[in-house]
Amino acid sequence: MRIGLSRGRHPEESRMTQLFKGLERIEEARERLTGRSFMAGVFAGAPDFSLLLTPEEPPEQKAAWEEFRPRLESFLTTQVDPDEIERTARIPDSVIKGLFALGAFAMKIPKEYGGLGLSYSYYGRALVLIAGWSNILALTVAVPQSIGIAMPLLLFGSEEQRRRYLPIVAREAVSAFALTEPMTGSDAANIRTEAVLDAGGSAFIVNGEKLWCTNGPIARYVTLIARVPAKREQRGGQSVWVPVPEGKEADDSVPTALILDMTTPGVVVRQRCQFEGCRGIENAYMTFSDVRIPAENLIGEVGRGLRYALTILNVGRAVSIPAICLGMAKQAWLPTLDRANSRVTFQKPLGERQTQRMRVGRMAAQLLAMEALASAVWSMADQHRYDVRIEAAIAKIFCSEQTIRFLKDAQTLFGGMGYETADSKRVRGEPAFGIEQLVRDAEMYRIGEGATDILRPFVAREGLNLHLERARNYFDEKVTGLRRVAEVWRLVRFYVPWYLRQWRRRPWPSGSVFQHAKVRPRLAFVERASRRLARATFYAMMRHGPALRDDQGRQNRIEEVGEDLLVIATTALYAEAQERTTGHAEAWDLADEIFRETKPRVARQTRELMWNRDRPVTDVGAKAVDGTYAFLSDGIIPRTLQDYRSPEKRPLRPEKQAI
Amino acid sequence: MRIGLSRGRHPEESRMTQLFKGLERIEEARERLTGRSFMAGVFAGAPDFSLLLTPEEPPEQKAAWEEFRPRLESFLTTQVDPDEIERTARIPDSVIKGLFALGAFAMKIPKEYGGLGLSYSYYGRALVLIAGWSNILALTVAVPQSIGIAMPLLLFGSEEQRRRYLPIVAREAVSAFALTEPMTGSDAANIRTEAVLDAGGSAFIVNGEKLWCTNGPIARYVTLIARVPAKREQRGGQSVWVPVPEGKEADDSVPTALILDMTTPGVVVRQRCQFEGCRGIENAYMTFSDVRIPAENLIGEVGRGLRYALTILNVGRAVSIPAICLGMAKQAWLPTLDRANSRVTFQKPLGERQTQRMRVGRMAAQLLAMEALASAVWSMADQHRYDVRIEAAIAKIFCSEQTIRFLKDAQTLFGGMGYETADSKRVRGEPAFGIEQLVRDAEMYRIGEGATDILRPFVAREGLNLHLERARNYFDEKVTGLRRVAEVWRLVRFYVPWYLRQWRRRPWPSGSVFQHAKVRPRLAFVERASRRLARATFYAMMRHGPALRDDQGRQNRIEEVGEDLLVIATTALYAEAQERTTGHAEAWDLADEIFRETKPRVARQTRELMWNRDRPVTDVGAKAVDGTYAFLSDGIIPRTLQDYRSPEKRPLRPEKQAI
Repeated sequence: MRIGLSRGRHPEESRMTQLFKGLERIEEARERLTGRSFMAGVFAGAPDFSLLLTPEEPPEQKAAWEEFRPRLESFLTTQVDPDEIERTARIPDSVIKGLFALGAFAMKIPKEYGGLGLSYSYYGRALVLIAGWSNILALTVAVPQSIGIAMPLLLFGSEEQRRRYLPIVAREAVSAFALTEPMTGSDAANIRTEAVLDAGGSAFIVNGEKLWCTNGPIARYVTLIARVPAKREQRGGQSVWVPVPEGKEADDSVPTALILDMTTPGVVVRQRCQFEGCRGIENAYMTFSDVRIPAENLIGEVGRGLRYALTILNVGRAVSIPAICLGMAKQAWLPTLDRANSRVTFQKPLGERQTQRMRVGRMAAQLLAMEALASAVWSMADQHRYDVRIEAAIAKIFCSEQTIRFLKDAQTLFGGMGYETADSKRVRGEPAFGIEQLVRDAEMYRIGEGATDILRPFVAREGLNLHLERARNYFDEKVTGLRRVAEVWRLVRFYVPWYLRQWRRRPWPSGSVFQHAKVRPRLAFVERASRRLARATFYAMMRHGPALRDDQGRQNRIEEVGEDLLVIATTALYAEAQERTTGHAEAWDLADEIFRETKPRVARQTRELMWNRDRPVTDVGAKAVDGTYAFLSDGIIPRTLQDYRSPEKRPLRPEKQAI
Repeated sequence: MRIGLSRGRHPEESRMTQLFKGLERIEEARERLTGRSFMAGVFAGAPDFSLLLTPEEPPEQKAAWEEFRPRLESFLTTQVDPDEIERTARIPDSVIKGLFALGAFAMKIPKEYGGLGLSYSYYGRALVLIAGWSNILALTVAVPQSIGIAMPLLLFGSEEQRRRYLPIVAREAVSAFALTEPMTGSDAANIRTEAVLDAGGSAFIVNGEKLWCTNGPIARYVTLIARVPAKREQRGGQSVWVPVPEGKEADDSVPTALILDMTTPGVVVRQRCQFEGCRGIENAYMTFSDVRIPAENLIGEVGRGLRYALTILNVGRAVSIPAICLGMAKQAWLPTLDRANSRVTFQKPLGERQTQRMRVGRMAAQLLAMEALASAVWSMADQHRYDVRIEAAIAKIFCSEQTIRFLKDAQTLFGGMGYETADSKRVRGEPAFGIEQLVRDAEMYRIGEGATDILRPFVAREGLNLHLERARNYFDEKVTGLRRVAEVWRLVRFYVPWYLRQWRRRPWPSGSVFQHAKVRPRLAFVERASRRLARATFYAMMRHGPALRDDQGRQNRIEEVGEDLLVIATTALYAEAQERTTGHAEAWDLADEIFRETKPRVARQTRELMWNRDRPVTDVGAKAVDGTYAFLSDGIIPRTLQDYRSPEKRPLRPEKQAI
């Protein structure tokens, strides 16, 4: 029996998680990472707060940003009409061209390849700025830089590929990323599109289809993840995948990353997909028939496509999505305050009603927390010393979920005006603030690049693996007799001191930040709570063992506690930095509110790691899925999912009916 | 000083609440009501469960429904394409005509006026059925029957008006309701549209504007609420409002209901408003200039327009909106189960993942609870013996909020497919189930006919007024000396026995239903919790006194506890009835889940009526509204609400900018 969350069949694993499964060990996947992870410390009951400190930005970075920012602002205010993008559901060519000329598609590309060479922190700030004007524009600009061909080439491409493609994608060609297929969403390892080496070995011949490719319809280049039939061979002491030409026998067909030129014959954009929101986004369903990709367009090594995808998706999670969400929330903030002040009902402005004050107070605290968490993660990523996969996933979950809540609250405050479209309000001369559009658009960011339901268990593995890996042999029922006794002894030797450590406060870090009268109690809470979390996770492991692999109720709680602790810590440090550098001590009001809100939740969720009532509602759900409560469909004309597909069952109007 | 929630300036009062203010005493407003209210009992710590028992439906009602239902089903399946309505954003004329021919616009109109004469219960079921096919159609059909001219004429019109108009609106003419104005939403008493009697006294001349009038663009008749300049006169011992002709001095300009024929010169539909959802709904912004309405089109008495509006809005809250929400949730139910069963990721269907099972389990329980609550309220309304204003408001809050949550959960389960539009999916042959449309449409029902933020305090007044009314003189600081001593003595004499009663269990009602092994503990919990709620409300009143008028944090909790208790009780009785009549004992799984979910919440919210942490977040909100946290807008190009209005500040593209 195989133990360890990373390798078992795992409930709703993310693309990332999927990679690890069967492909390589966790340790292997971390090989590129040179440093430590803050969240690994939190889950182990030993957070290292020094990892959260933000070093000074290098002056040349700051100068580059200060040169770029006013140009960007001026371009947005004079050349971009966000309402036109929403109304026409497309970004004018002149805007795309203008953004290229500005360097907005090249922010993350190093200067030597024609880019601006901004750090993650400034790239993030630029996206916040753009998203505060138009999140559609921000997403269009972010995709090529996070998952389009720029990042894969920078991380895994050859120098020749970089020299050839990066200047083009920096200045003229939009790029995109094609992984998802109609039958393959979060379970990316199931992709079916195949790229077979031709007989001459000079090109891959691609057949298949890709769905929901953002920027696909306007992209010149696409990072294509496809399966390549290949054989395992030993080269230089290492086992590598070598592609085999058509007709030859292969060991497997392994996910591989390729640069696809969209002008190649056989590439057809079948459809521009339409969604609840993000109407201005170009999103493709495309098919490939015998598409020829030159062999030199292979990115990195054959068989590593999903691993590369994992790494580049991290950029989206760590930077792009939190930044875009933050920009959207910031855009809604001032109009919301204006509404609270200006809308008078029953002789009182909304802003004097307690319900609305509580709502606005929570919104303010959320906004600060998003900004604090996002900038902390960007800063960690910039130091290139830390493993930020977990922090990136948490930032993505937190910012997308909180932004949806934030915008929904804003919409509620606007009453009927919040439900009406901007264009419809404009007709009457009302302020054409499209909060309903923001609400529709925001849903995209909860789903894209790893949905919340997928990322929560992924984060939780970090907390659980510590134990499940170590106790693997113990849980293996085939390990018996003396081996078992030895195993128990090994565990006891490890866990007795480990467990005792979880009751002892760790030495307090030095540094004036950590002595701050407000910072200290908050971080001390995080430290205590992280030890409690580690103990509770340990108890859960002792009690439930490998069953935890399928226990998403507990997994979600581990993630949520971790998320809350990261938010408390980053928010406190952010408020301290605000107070110190700008004199805004008011930031503490908001950090305090975050602390008040999260503290009892941390206690409750930790307790529920041991005892909870998930069982009965899970059972009800299982029975529901099995069709037990069919009477719930009584009273309407029942339609199954199939009824929405087959034309003969769809409502038509063939014969007139006698009434 | 005036005490009593009903008369003070009240935080976010509903249209209903507004009525009471200054217009008449609560007791007066209840004059039409002949019976008791279940919720009044709950808030007083003495629920009378017998009020929730559902009597047998009269056989002629059942026969009428059984004759109507198959005709309705057949019409929907053969003549109505909901996707076409969404795509074209209008309901084909043939569908409107067909619905008229069917009698679907006349379900609530008595037979003697050409209607079907269905009870509230069957009218509700018909709306569920229609909404399960197309909520747009259900709303279009419901508006004329709840707030269009049918209900006002039935309740307050003359026999002549009924004979003249009801057969027309039953069979050929759509009607609507016009109350809201651009500056007047929930604070309906502020309407400005004026109807002035002309010199001859034969007609009212109307000038003004109305906003968001559902069905307005297709309506022939509208229930218009406008201000009529009038004098108070004594007639037959009663004080009545008598309209004064133009130029004559009036005491006030009082809200009055009139029948407006939309073909009258001077009525202009300026705009068909567009919203986030409900695209197929016809919704008007319209203006009136010197529109002549014959004096005989006055509905009921001058000055009673808002009171009438209150009463007819009750029908929407009690029946239409809960029914439409229930239909929408039911529509999403089967496709959600199909998705859970058919979507396989990582070799496992979604329906085997715990997160999704818990989600589906909660959804099943919510669906049962909505159905139980809605049908209980319909049945109470049908008995015409009870005051169901509070139950109607709770049904409206619960069903709209739960449906939004339910549909959002369904959307989440559909992943990216849940975000894509039905039409976009159809292109690829995917099932074109438009969950994203349902999500967008559902928001309408939270806002329309009294938003949640407005209705919660309205319901809470029911619990608070008991005490605030009684203690009014005590809280009046002008009452001093001996009068104060007498007042205290009066209160002590009332409250000592009242308070002691709140610790004593009430005698258990007879009847086999109440002895059922599952029903009894649930209702016993409701009975205990209602006494706890009454005590906690009393403590809060003692501690905070008239300050409770502005304490929406506590008001919302009173409502939420009341809502939970009503849901527990109706769900248990519904499950018992299901078990008894259909043999579906499985309904108890869902009623049990509701009980598990609500029980701890009732305890917590009741406790928080005494101690809570609302203060700090309220203060943060107040500071935010005052602009304290301006730094939260840093990082984007700030735009106030005004910036979305004034053209000179709007993003234009005048000069090309050098980049």
